[in-house]
Amino acid sequence: MIYQLKKIRKIIESIKDTEHFKQAFVHTSYLNELKLRKNSDSESGSENNENPVSSYETLEFLGDSILNFHTSLFIYQKFPNYAEGQMSKLKQLMVQESTLAYLSKEIGLGEFLQLGMGERKNRGAEKESILADVFESFVAALYLEKGSKIVHRFLNLTVFAWSEGKENMVWDYKSQLQEYCQARKGRVNYRLKGKKIVGDEHQQLFIVEVEVNDGPRTFWESGEGRSKSKAEQQAAAKAVKKLGIEKEKN
Amino acid sequence: MIYQLKKIRKIIESIKDTEHFKQAFVHTSYLNELKLRKNSDSESGSENNENPVSSYETLEFLGDSILNFHTSLFIYQKFPNYAEGQMSKLKQLMVQESTLAYLSKEIGLGEFLQLGMGERKNRGAEKESILADVFESFVAALYLEKGSKIVHRFLNLTVFAWSEGKENMVWDYKSQLQEYCQARKGRVNYRLKGKKIVGDEHQQLFIVEVEVNDGPRTFWESGEGRSKSKAEQQAAAKAVKKLGIEKEKN
Repeated sequence: MIYQLKKIRKIIESIKDTEHFKQAFVHTSYLNELKLRKNSDSESGSENNENPVSSYETLEFLGDSILNFHTSLFIYQKFPNYAEGQMSKLKQLMVQESTLAYLSKEIGLGEFLQLGMGERKNRGAEKESILADVFESFVAALYLEKGSKIVHRFLNLTVFAWSEGKENMVWDYKSQLQEYCQARKGRVNYRLKGKKIVGDEHQQLFIVEVEVNDGPRTFWESGEGRSKSKAEQQAAAKAVKKLGIEKEKN
Repeated sequence: MIYQLKKIRKIIESIKDTEHFKQAFVHTSYLNELKLRKNSDSESGSENNENPVSSYETLEFLGDSILNFHTSLFIYQKFPNYAEGQMSKLKQLMVQESTLAYLSKEIGLGEFLQLGMGERKNRGAEKESILADVFESFVAALYLEKGSKIVHRFLNLTVFAWSEGKENMVWDYKSQLQEYCQARKGRVNYRLKGKKIVGDEHQQLFIVEVEVNDGPRTFWESGEGRSKSKAEQQAAAKAVKKLGIEKEKN
């Protein structure tokens, strides 16, 4: 999956000795242990005036927003014809816990984790939630040390690369139809034809007609649904079928 | 509230003639009307090959992530001692719908809105949801036209300025105690002393002790709570009281 591990490791190495990097991998369980040890040190009279280390949560807070921003921009620029709903769906897929945890593991972020004894015994370094957390806190550390461009490069090698070919998972018929016709200088128009009430529960159904022009020819299909957008999807699905351009869904 | 309206309006004016700006204020209701009109035009035989305008949703998608990123960074840098929970709370306050709608209104973004007839009759230009939407879509347009620095300046004059003095709303005793002691080269240490089971429901209570050093003196307070963090809050509250530094909450 990750073809460019060497490049990624180089980016990681470039900030490995910084305070932000260290903080990015400190789990609270480790910090709590450290404090306990300090307390017993000070009780036994030894001095320890080092500032307490912070755990990764605040970096994770910042990293989450950095990751979201870069991912949104990536989607907005790569798929300018997507509807907002598709953009959101794709983003959700790209920044969800399982994705980040998977990437974190692939690129070896887990090995830097500082866990307390209990968390270590609990196999904390393999927990999806913790692995996803440190992906975000690492992104924040990278941003604070090296700036926006390097973050973009890092995400390009990880999250964005991972998303290749996943676009189908958020695909829908309306967008497919739109893109197909647009590429052929045609057009797609939806028109609300009416509503009807069905069933004992007097459910309202929307009836929509789509006018499809794929360049050389024009044809019409209709769809019904409990919302206008569902009716449009149905009409678009019929048109996509008629054009014989149905994509496989994964 | 907004003291620098002139500067803000200057920023708005600077991108007023761009395509992104225009799109940032197009509501779907307006677009739908436009399409209907086009359809009847093409039925009556007249030609209209202009590309269909897009509504603001995709810009809003992008703008939301830009706003979140800048706001997170602002909080992270301005309140480095905040715990993650406080940072999140403050951010939520700053980017919530009512805040953005209020600011949108103050700086006059509503006047650029393109609404359909129905939405206009519905006073759509005064709806909080729509006003908040266009704050975000405007931020995206500004980013795409002028880049990150201008977005930061714009947010500095609006969202960040608005947040001044609101820090109290997310304040808590632990942070207050921490900041007070840190400023006096003292220290604060929490220690879990034990747990107890109470009541018919065998509820578990955590017992925590805080050791407070405010520079010249050291004292101890204890707290109980259903979680470690609640117990620590209670202990910190007692210490804050003892020090006589209790803040007013708004």
